[in-house]
Amino acid sequence: MGLGHIKALFEPRSIAVVGASREPWKTGHIILKNIVEAGFKGKIYPINPKATEILGLTVYPSVSKVPDDIDMMVIVVPARIVPRIMEEAGEKGVKAAVIISGGFAETGPEGAKLQEEVVKIARKYGIRFVGPNCQGVNNPHNGLCASWPLIKKAGPLAIISQSGTVAATFEIWAEREGIGISKMVALGNRADITEVDILEYLGEDPNTKAIGMYIESVSHGKRFLEVAQEVTKRKPIIVLKSGRTAAGARAVASHTGSLAGEYRIYLAAFKKAGVIPVDSIEELYDVTKGLALLPKPKGNRVLIITSSGGSGIISTDYSELLGLKVTSLASETAEELRKVLPSYCIVRNPLDLTGDATAERYSVTLERVIKDPNVDIVLTIFGDPIPNANNVVEKYYNKGKTIVPVYLGGGDVEEKEKALMHSKGIPVFPTPERGVKVVRALYEYTLHIEKVRRRSLS
Amino acid sequence: MGLGHIKALFEPRSIAVVGASREPWKTGHIILKNIVEAGFKGKIYPINPKATEILGLTVYPSVSKVPDDIDMMVIVVPARIVPRIMEEAGEKGVKAAVIISGGFAETGPEGAKLQEEVVKIARKYGIRFVGPNCQGVNNPHNGLCASWPLIKKAGPLAIISQSGTVAATFEIWAEREGIGISKMVALGNRADITEVDILEYLGEDPNTKAIGMYIESVSHGKRFLEVAQEVTKRKPIIVLKSGRTAAGARAVASHTGSLAGEYRIYLAAFKKAGVIPVDSIEELYDVTKGLALLPKPKGNRVLIITSSGGSGIISTDYSELLGLKVTSLASETAEELRKVLPSYCIVRNPLDLTGDATAERYSVTLERVIKDPNVDIVLTIFGDPIPNANNVVEKYYNKGKTIVPVYLGGGDVEEKEKALMHSKGIPVFPTPERGVKVVRALYEYTLHIEKVRRRSLS
Repeated sequence: MGLGHIKALFEPRSIAVVGASREPWKTGHIILKNIVEAGFKGKIYPINPKATEILGLTVYPSVSKVPDDIDMMVIVVPARIVPRIMEEAGEKGVKAAVIISGGFAETGPEGAKLQEEVVKIARKYGIRFVGPNCQGVNNPHNGLCASWPLIKKAGPLAIISQSGTVAATFEIWAEREGIGISKMVALGNRADITEVDILEYLGEDPNTKAIGMYIESVSHGKRFLEVAQEVTKRKPIIVLKSGRTAAGARAVASHTGSLAGEYRIYLAAFKKAGVIPVDSIEELYDVTKGLALLPKPKGNRVLIITSSGGSGIISTDYSELLGLKVTSLASETAEELRKVLPSYCIVRNPLDLTGDATAERYSVTLERVIKDPNVDIVLTIFGDPIPNANNVVEKYYNKGKTIVPVYLGGGDVEEKEKALMHSKGIPVFPTPERGVKVVRALYEYTLHIEKVRRRSLS
Repeated sequence: MGLGHIKALFEPRSIAVVGASREPWKTGHIILKNIVEAGFKGKIYPINPKATEILGLTVYPSVSKVPDDIDMMVIVVPARIVPRIMEEAGEKGVKAAVIISGGFAETGPEGAKLQEEVVKIARKYGIRFVGPNCQGVNNPHNGLCASWPLIKKAGPLAIISQSGTVAATFEIWAEREGIGISKMVALGNRADITEVDILEYLGEDPNTKAIGMYIESVSHGKRFLEVAQEVTKRKPIIVLKSGRTAAGARAVASHTGSLAGEYRIYLAAFKKAGVIPVDSIEELYDVTKGLALLPKPKGNRVLIITSSGGSGIISTDYSELLGLKVTSLASETAEELRKVLPSYCIVRNPLDLTGDATAERYSVTLERVIKDPNVDIVLTIFGDPIPNANNVVEKYYNKGKTIVPVYLGGGDVEEKEKALMHSKGIPVFPTPERGVKVVRALYEYTLHIEKVRRRSLS
């Protein structure tokens, strides 16, 4: 069972939306509309006993009346009806479900009882389900947005989240930047499918290059660590864990009905499993994006190239503060650079190409720097409107050094160049601070991978 | 002299651009174009001995040939010519100048000598100048963008910066959000005008509600603190100080030819003067924006209202970590709220209105909460696409509590609502973490103001 049915969740051939609505402001309408507009290629069956047609689709009064197999079902009806719907779905042979409806364990003992009932029915029929009390799932590689808002851009980033809002925010950023999502799961109450099941599935998903997670607690600590330890051998897992303070932990208890553990215990466990912890929603996004797309560095020696002296200094501070090594250029590299760069450029680290730097000046610099034996990572900061930056980065990307682009202060030119880099699968970051944090996380993950490799050899 | 001539820098009746160029990619062209396109109402005189007309404007061969007074002059010519230009300007009676050109103290002893020469000439004629080696000034309230990129949006935020890129980034964000800038100064080498002169001027500037600063070092420590102490009585000063680490401090030395002091000495001095320190470019922007526009709180007791349980928990964690008090609702407020809210809403702190919350539900909540004696600050998080959020915030804004809006996960609805809030002078923040950091800084500034007030009474 397990992974097969979770496959049906993300790659169904047919979907029923139980509680599909004609009213445009209702969740039962929005989800149906998003599934249609995301371009789902399989069959879509809206279920509503009081309607005959919604968005041009034939409506059925119940799942049992659908003249076809149903792989996956989205449920958007009042909580008390959910058990009946699940029974019907079980009889029909539905494999996977997403229960959007709230009114379960998160509301108190009565809701918890109702949730237990739903779990029992699901077990009886072998239905695997996400939720209840969740914001759905998304698989843009399959045109399946059973969630909101509508997110269509397919890409390499997966997001698993106990918060629908954090998941949506992550998806919106990934879409706006042209990076895109491989899978999104908003877990809700985790009555059946947990983050561990999804992790297992994503570990094998060829479209997923890095997995971001927002969690308030872990469902099954030991299994989570076992699975994470396996998955991180192949792809990075980045976790934002909330409920870190006492007050935060109390708040967790009323959000999705679970209790937060001690944060430092989590941190130790994450480290062992190679999971990268982060401190904010933005950092979760940045690091997942960076670790999905950046080549791994050979060490932690950072060279900063910049057109902005200030950005160079901020990057130096952050690199030192985060334990990276602000390297020195090899004397041959420095000598060569002094020959080819204007005399007012400052050839050291940070390497300041100054405010009139062109893409060409970055190019002659990178050409030499990528051969420097003292350098592992090149934080490449464009701090002015510099056209064609994307071509230069592309030319030297993945040529032995880890080039990490940052672009700021460039107005419309910046927007265009960033979009071009992202369209080429090159991640670019909006400030030096955010760029350096990604470098730090990338180095941490690289160290873990090496440790695992050495251990498997010995 | 002093402030009068600095007034001429920001509010000139006439400008000369020395080194104005016909070539669209040259800084001497871009600055002239930006002055024209920003809608400068005074007279503009391009100076270039080899041209007769640029952008439809009559070009003069030298400032001495201009048949009119010149208040302010922008210099974009090679460094070695600058002394001659300054002499000519002195004879002409120019009051203020911006020297964009690089090639001075930042390049070594020879450049430093050239810079000394320029200073001497300026002193002789009483010209005050910004730079050299800088990215210019901007005053959108006067249609004066003597800088790049073109930024036209006038608003309440001032930015003083030793880095042109940090200044430009700040301006671009303020323009994109519809908040706008009061003044921008990119200081460069600070051979004459320093951050202290500008602070003095901005302290009296009615268009400036908060002052953001990026500095690598302070020119005149004692005077900076004296002036800052006066200015912070009337408006907040927020500082991002770089060169914090040893490596960062070394990098400062080659950027604008000055040495960074010890960071902890800075922090102690900032605290005494009521200056708010921040840790990143984004935080500099967020806090300046928040402190310019948010009403001051009566204390540090935070209530979190949210449609997103996860965002509520993250906010709780951050509030605790930053020393704010996550308050408890007064029992009467809780009782009333339980009557008017759907039963599945979680009436505690964080107050979870759940994912189907409408603007109306926020409204009935805020109506009661703003009367709660246990609450000083209401972090109001919209974590879903919630139309009309802006109207609700407007209705209860500045009614005795400090309402701090955060909006995320709302896609296009979010963009629209954020723009509307900003157009009404209400700041909104993109993540809970960034919102809470602003609350913390606002509380810190409020404490300082109270201390100053108490001291002046006793």
